[in-house]
Amino acid sequence: MRIVFMGKAEVPDLQVSSLSWENGSLVLLDQTKLPQEEAYLVCRDHRQVAAAIRRLAVRGAPAIGVAAAFGVVLGAQEILARGGDLQTELPVVFEELRSTRPTAVNLFWALDRMARAWQAQGGTAEPATLVSALEAEALRLYREDAESNRRLGEFGATLLADGMNILTICNAGALATVAYGTALAVVRMAVAQGKKIAVTACETRPLLQGARLTTWELLQEGIPVTLITDSMAGYVMQRGLVQAVITGADRVAANGDVVNKIGTYTLAVLAREHGLPFYVAAPFSTVDLAMPEGSRIPIEERAEDEVTCWQGRRLAPAGVKVLNPAFDLTPARYVTALITDRGIVRNGEWEKLQQMHGCGEKEELRNGQP
Amino acid sequence: MRIVFMGKAEVPDLQVSSLSWENGSLVLLDQTKLPQEEAYLVCRDHRQVAAAIRRLAVRGAPAIGVAAAFGVVLGAQEILARGGDLQTELPVVFEELRSTRPTAVNLFWALDRMARAWQAQGGTAEPATLVSALEAEALRLYREDAESNRRLGEFGATLLADGMNILTICNAGALATVAYGTALAVVRMAVAQGKKIAVTACETRPLLQGARLTTWELLQEGIPVTLITDSMAGYVMQRGLVQAVITGADRVAANGDVVNKIGTYTLAVLAREHGLPFYVAAPFSTVDLAMPEGSRIPIEERAEDEVTCWQGRRLAPAGVKVLNPAFDLTPARYVTALITDRGIVRNGEWEKLQQMHGCGEKEELRNGQP
Repeated sequence: MRIVFMGKAEVPDLQVSSLSWENGSLVLLDQTKLPQEEAYLVCRDHRQVAAAIRRLAVRGAPAIGVAAAFGVVLGAQEILARGGDLQTELPVVFEELRSTRPTAVNLFWALDRMARAWQAQGGTAEPATLVSALEAEALRLYREDAESNRRLGEFGATLLADGMNILTICNAGALATVAYGTALAVVRMAVAQGKKIAVTACETRPLLQGARLTTWELLQEGIPVTLITDSMAGYVMQRGLVQAVITGADRVAANGDVVNKIGTYTLAVLAREHGLPFYVAAPFSTVDLAMPEGSRIPIEERAEDEVTCWQGRRLAPAGVKVLNPAFDLTPARYVTALITDRGIVRNGEWEKLQQMHGCGEKEELRNGQP
Repeated sequence: MRIVFMGKAEVPDLQVSSLSWENGSLVLLDQTKLPQEEAYLVCRDHRQVAAAIRRLAVRGAPAIGVAAAFGVVLGAQEILARGGDLQTELPVVFEELRSTRPTAVNLFWALDRMARAWQAQGGTAEPATLVSALEAEALRLYREDAESNRRLGEFGATLLADGMNILTICNAGALATVAYGTALAVVRMAVAQGKKIAVTACETRPLLQGARLTTWELLQEGIPVTLITDSMAGYVMQRGLVQAVITGADRVAANGDVVNKIGTYTLAVLAREHGLPFYVAAPFSTVDLAMPEGSRIPIEERAEDEVTCWQGRRLAPAGVKVLNPAFDLTPARYVTALITDRGIVRNGEWEKLQQMHGCGEKEELRNGQP
């Protein structure tokens, strides 16, 4: 049995792994089945990966990016196996993966990295060499994400004081990345430093990623977690039950605007009203410097039955009109600081994102040529 | 068949009726079954009424008050039927009904009215006369609530402009009262005046009264309604999709503080941030002048499985800690105006509540002696 790596083996102390690359297949923890069932999907072609991203079996901006990168490898393997033409057929694979979800920028960023790795081989490389280069790049993206989780966690942990209770929404944890998570990496690293930190998880309607995933992940690690409905966020702040908010992000614009899970904006407004810091934790790959402001970021509108039904049972009368934006926009003025793997950017210092972009590029080159 | 009245017959143009008094029984629409099933519970003793209030088969502050009043009549009928002693046994009935829910003041207010009606008969009245007096008082409470819905709806409708979309939470509609509702009475009356009004309903986790009841009620009446998750409230305000918020109340303190369904406070903070009016619609029976400020109002904490399960299926892992306050406190400073059946009280004029109390008493006396 050929195992290139497994998440839990590769990343120390990780209790939970969203994806791994085993024997030339992408193994995904099917997050739609949690917490009832810990089921794994083995994806052997890129269509299975695209379908898994669409139906949120794998979700979270960084995890989507890495999964899509392995989707490209699977597509290339398949073309190669049946003697197809990579030059004409691989672009179709890229296109199918690119069209799965519109908001999280990591998807496009990871696919662009894969496209560059392919182009770097030139048109003359042996097909098998090309596929190996793609696999190597996907593995590099995986390892970079794990490393980025660790770094942003360490930067962010400096912001947390002993005894804090952190409010979060959706799942910005191990299940949203390949390793420690983003918002929850900050919590993990603070806990590793010996700080007593607890988490309050918004359940995150309609798909309950907070209730199903964040609580599950934190229970596995023994980090204290309290579940609330999204509507209780104001109540817990008013009563002094939380001391900071940390969320992930699906895309950060050049001006510091943040697009993240629907409900994030409400938390940001509430945090400001209560004088609490509102932090956003995201790898630099989530920052889209080509996007000048958040209002231009496309917001995915998902199916109505996510709101009106639960596991096939109707919650609302048939025929009712429904809104179901999957994300919302938090203007930069509400963001106390952005915690990235390249450092912390505080409110009002958004121009630092441009500078960080430069130094990150150099660093990535160094990492890429060990 | 003896029918004292039915809701739909008594109140013109009412499509939906939460309760009626038929042949000496209290008939409740079982709101836990909506929208799948329109099922009615026939309560023949006060214990059934108490159980129905506890498990939210009947809910909404005004409806709870009226249901409890009929619960007293059922208790008295039963004691009388088996030759029991009203003087010693009826206080137990009162106590059982009083202990069903702690937050909505209408429950205590209605039971106090029933106790006064009983005391007014003196110790010497025939038991049958006493039961008739109690029934007459419960019917008076019912009719007063219907009349109060109409009046507060008319007062409130003056605040709404043609074309407005109104954000609301929970169900402050016909299903929360005996007639037109509170927040939704305002909408109904504005529509009756020819204004084009639409409603955006927060689904209202954990028990989804918005998704299940408000949408159902408005669809029956042909008033346009859009369902959102509670977490989308910030989004709809940011995008200009709603122009005002109107909620009901479970208790209003003398200083204008409002206790209402969990999530109301979050809406109030969001409304202020977006410069939108935040109105609270409640009959004067919801104002508790003996309560100087809202922070002293007890907030009911309900069972954890309301948050962690839906129809017997787990949404969250076993063993997770949960908060489940059924209500929250909105400080008076966030309330643009309180819409009552005795007039509108604007922010900063809370001392008017004391004056209104006086004039209402006189009015009630007039109504009581036609």
